Amino acid sequence: MQIIQSRKELRQGIKNARSDGKTIGFVPTMGFLHRGHLSLMRRARKENDLVVASIFVNPTQFGPNEDLEAYPRDAQRDIDLMTAESVDIAFFPTVEALYPEGYTTFVDVEGPMTQVLCGQSRPTHFRGVTTIVAKLFNMVAPDRAYFGQKDAQQVAVIRRMAADLDFDLSIVVCPIVRETDGLAMSSRNTYLTPEQRENAPQLNKALIMSREMVEKGERSGPAVRKAIESRINGVNGAVIDYVAVVNAESLAELQTLEGKVLIALAVKFGTTRLIDNVQIDVRDQLA
Amino acid sequence: MQIIQSRKELRQGIKNARSDGKTIGFVPTMGFLHRGHLSLMRRARKENDLVVASIFVNPTQFGPNEDLEAYPRDAQRDIDLMTAESVDIAFFPTVEALYPEGYTTFVDVEGPMTQVLCGQSRPTHFRGVTTIVAKLFNMVAPDRAYFGQKDAQQVAVIRRMAADLDFDLSIVVCPIVRETDGLAMSSRNTYLTPEQRENAPQLNKALIMSREMVEKGERSGPAVRKAIESRINGVNGAVIDYVAVVNAESLAELQTLEGKVLIALAVKFGTTRLIDNVQIDVRDQLA
Repeated sequence: MQIIQSRKELRQGIKNARSDGKTIGFVPTMGFLHRGHLSLMRRARKENDLVVASIFVNPTQFGPNEDLEAYPRDAQRDIDLMTAESVDIAFFPTVEALYPEGYTTFVDVEGPMTQVLCGQSRPTHFRGVTTIVAKLFNMVAPDRAYFGQKDAQQVAVIRRMAADLDFDLSIVVCPIVRETDGLAMSSRNTYLTPEQRENAPQLNKALIMSREMVEKGERSGPAVRKAIESRINGVNGAVIDYVAVVNAESLAELQTLEGKVLIALAVKFGTTRLIDNVQIDVRDQLA
Repeated sequence: MQIIQSRKELRQGIKNARSDGKTIGFVPTMGFLHRGHLSLMRRARKENDLVVASIFVNPTQFGPNEDLEAYPRDAQRDIDLMTAESVDIAFFPTVEALYPEGYTTFVDVEGPMTQVLCGQSRPTHFRGVTTIVAKLFNMVAPDRAYFGQKDAQQVAVIRRMAADLDFDLSIVVCPIVRETDGLAMSSRNTYLTPEQRENAPQLNKALIMSREMVEKGERSGPAVRKAIESRINGVNGAVIDYVAVVNAESLAELQTLEGKVLIALAVKFGTTRLIDNVQIDVRDQLA
């Protein structure tokens, strides 16, 4: 595995692969890799000749009072894990290289899609995400880019951005990877106290319950949302940021469930904010 | 020359050129071509294996009360001119294809650079420019993109955008092409009445005068600006939008002239707004 810090060197690597006719798969991450990230790399490895993964804790997607400084980092561990997944190029850019003095350009998906759900409590988050992803797409010029379904809103926003700005690539979305007790993998899980960690799987349990409600015929968005809220309000130490029942592509709130439905939530345990979701394809079933 | 309307067909043309190892030069235009545009195509022809030119009157760079509808169009004439310049691919996308329903992504160079000069009277103009240029860069993936120095602020903003978003291409800037009486070529010159047309070359004359002031030792930005303003205020029918003496890269106003200096102006004759500029490299000359 090549470990690359400079854009120039990255571009040379990409250019060489391209001139050999190789396809390129790209996995952008903020590092502190867990099995969720590794599943993306494995999928990219299967589908492409060259696999590039980036490790960059992107400052523009953190708000002023968020956990940018505290965000867990362990480059050596990440390198070992990527090596084991047969990643070809590990790209570790510096903040100074990607956001030099005088940097002023931002890519923004405007409108409700970035204002609802996580956008409500993190108003500049997705602008940071789309900006860094557009930059990385331009640097890596991949055929396929891999994202985890855990960040469902991020997936919808990046799909929108990639289509709107005519990026010539496929967005590949991989399923949520969970701990054995159901907690969705996240680098932020390391923040949890033992007691919070014990209660955190209740988020997944609430989502499973909601899916079962829908499977049994429930079609009211508010009814599903309230059932989840009521369940999570009973979990020790859990403070709801949002529970949302929305169209999976537009993220518009649904009164009546139909089509591709996303049920998503963000819940705080102390200062740690966890997100999780379930996607359900609701077909009209005639009685 | 291939005349292409669909992105898919364009991409196939680009892909074929790439796999043959060809370099790609790109000239984005809004059509109604004049000798300024043709000079860009000629330069692109010299420097690249494949030349792509686009003709697209981009709605997002026009304000609500601007001349989008009236903007002159003549596709057949443009096709003939591009054929004569040996352009390989003429790309004529539709508004519906580039901005489909649900389109919400914008690329924005934030801060003073897009708020001064033309940005003052056209507050959303550059956001439209950077968005369409980013889209076209993603579609064409050129090695070099060609722009005219007449739109000096556009050049500075696009340079900033391309660097910030890590586009892997060179921005090539070509000199202003003028009518024999000095009027800078512009598709909007066709709006001028015969009398306005007769007075319009005074803009260039005022800029020549300002250059001569600097060559004779004037180093005060405000003094240069006032001299231009006073001269243009004496031109029949001319109404100044702005006269600015700024750093050519940052577009920051200069009290004292040094380095690369841009002297730019926008002046209205009736409803027609004309722009022009001169760039001067001011070295410190010790007495």
